[in-house]
Amino acid sequence: MKYCSSCFVSYVYKKVVRTVRYYRMFERGDRVVLAVSGGKDSVVLADIMGRLGRRLRWVEFVGVTVDEGIRTPAGDYRAEALSLARSVLEKYSIPHRVYTYKELFGATLPEFMRAGVYAGSACSVCGVLRRRALNIAARELGATKIATGHNKDDEAQTVLMNVLRGDLERMIRAGAAEGIGGNLSREKEAENGVGVGGFVPRVKPLKRLYEREIAMYAYLRGYGFQSVECPFPRDTVRDAVREALDILSTRISGVHDALLNFEDKLLERLGSSTAHVRACRNCGEPTSPGRELCKACEYVLRYAEKSGGGVSVGAP
Amino acid sequence: MKYCSSCFVSYVYKKVVRTVRYYRMFERGDRVVLAVSGGKDSVVLADIMGRLGRRLRWVEFVGVTVDEGIRTPAGDYRAEALSLARSVLEKYSIPHRVYTYKELFGATLPEFMRAGVYAGSACSVCGVLRRRALNIAARELGATKIATGHNKDDEAQTVLMNVLRGDLERMIRAGAAEGIGGNLSREKEAENGVGVGGFVPRVKPLKRLYEREIAMYAYLRGYGFQSVECPFPRDTVRDAVREALDILSTRISGVHDALLNFEDKLLERLGSSTAHVRACRNCGEPTSPGRELCKACEYVLRYAEKSGGGVSVGAP
Repeated sequence: MKYCSSCFVSYVYKKVVRTVRYYRMFERGDRVVLAVSGGKDSVVLADIMGRLGRRLRWVEFVGVTVDEGIRTPAGDYRAEALSLARSVLEKYSIPHRVYTYKELFGATLPEFMRAGVYAGSACSVCGVLRRRALNIAARELGATKIATGHNKDDEAQTVLMNVLRGDLERMIRAGAAEGIGGNLSREKEAENGVGVGGFVPRVKPLKRLYEREIAMYAYLRGYGFQSVECPFPRDTVRDAVREALDILSTRISGVHDALLNFEDKLLERLGSSTAHVRACRNCGEPTSPGRELCKACEYVLRYAEKSGGGVSVGAP
Repeated sequence: MKYCSSCFVSYVYKKVVRTVRYYRMFERGDRVVLAVSGGKDSVVLADIMGRLGRRLRWVEFVGVTVDEGIRTPAGDYRAEALSLARSVLEKYSIPHRVYTYKELFGATLPEFMRAGVYAGSACSVCGVLRRRALNIAARELGATKIATGHNKDDEAQTVLMNVLRGDLERMIRAGAAEGIGGNLSREKEAENGVGVGGFVPRVKPLKRLYEREIAMYAYLRGYGFQSVECPFPRDTVRDAVREALDILSTRISGVHDALLNFEDKLLERLGSSTAHVRACRNCGEPTSPGRELCKACEYVLRYAEKSGGGVSVGAP
């Protein structure tokens, strides 16, 4: 399909509205945290939610940026992103809050990595801490949902990664976190023996848009792009999956949608009864089955051990 | 791991025995059709089942070769394969029967393709007809199981193909056909409103062996390889998936096993209750949900239409 600029912008907007409706992402009275890192996906998320918010008076948005404490020599990675985030949120008069790893977890991402809390990629550690930070922020702000800018490429990669790792459990838990196949609600947690720590459901309004469509939308709407890249090396497994998927998509049509449909169908069939979470012994936040301590606490405690400092965990 | 020749041969043999046991592939009194095309996988299947049969006196084997009617100018594709099949079966005194598409369905594969019964790859048509031919053969021979030579690469590709097509239903049906997550038994068929046409369960004793392990075993045991290739172009989707998987396996360890584990876990969770089959209106054999006519009958009827000939379907 070929579109002129303004038709393309309205096509993207409508597609997101349809996705929000299809998955019933918002309910009357929702207060939604918009996770706005300042990257193009999150800026487009904020823009579209800002436009939608003018129509949907019964949903309230709060922007949250998580500062990992990454400072780069060539221009400041986080400062640039923060100003991109601030500008889109100001445009729609959406309040903006910044949460830092330093305040929440006692150290920045570079400090965690330098202390060697995890042998794998920084992305793994950052993913765990960011999800936790957003959860803490959402509860503090009295939010009922967290909206992130994950796009179709991200989501298809994640489905494929879980399949290639044989990790059905993770797929089910992630689906439950989005409320597909049933919410991972407070009742459910109670049933599963989790007493503390509310889990705030995630929604992904851009999950049916390709990355390139989002980039084009951002460009046409006049948003600036980040010029400073994250200095940490990328996740090699995700990179391999991204490349494989790019190759496959040129030879099998519609693979991205097929992957998302596969996940949806699977979660619908399995239902919420099969998603189990338990409370972390240390902070009470949800943790994976078989884990006494959640990964965030594991990193924080290991950091304290290695650096000889005190322990502080952003508990509810 | 490095092995000497004889340790490698015994490693492969034991691995197959473990797979057979783990999936409880055989029961006392089983009469098992060995699908022996003459390709290396099926020759190794016959060899290992022959060896196992000497120990497991309570299982009986019958070799079946399906002749698609492919005749090639440079050497005869099927004649060569047939003699390879015959020689391994004779070695273990396993009876051997040949079934032809011509007799069962009224035409050879080249005739079906020339008549244009299907616009896609010949592999798709051949797959449908071969499965049907084996099912007919098994019933005629009073067999309780059909064993095929599918290896770990084949199986991992199939799981990935189904995921990339978003085809959860096909994955469930294929699993049920193997009796994983519950058999697609006669009772189940009756429950689902299927009265006629028994579905003979499939087993895949080599599914945990890599293609290269099978090739090495065949070589070390002195079996000849096919020199004449099938003249039809290969399935492009499967080729793309094979290549992607080869690339991924060099960067993510254990992807093949992870894919098989993913399928096993999924089928266990979903159970047999979700696998639905119905009877084909024409031949009474099982057909996919939403299909009045099974694919085999569709091809046969379309062939009759296009060639102006009569209709013959290998009904039970």
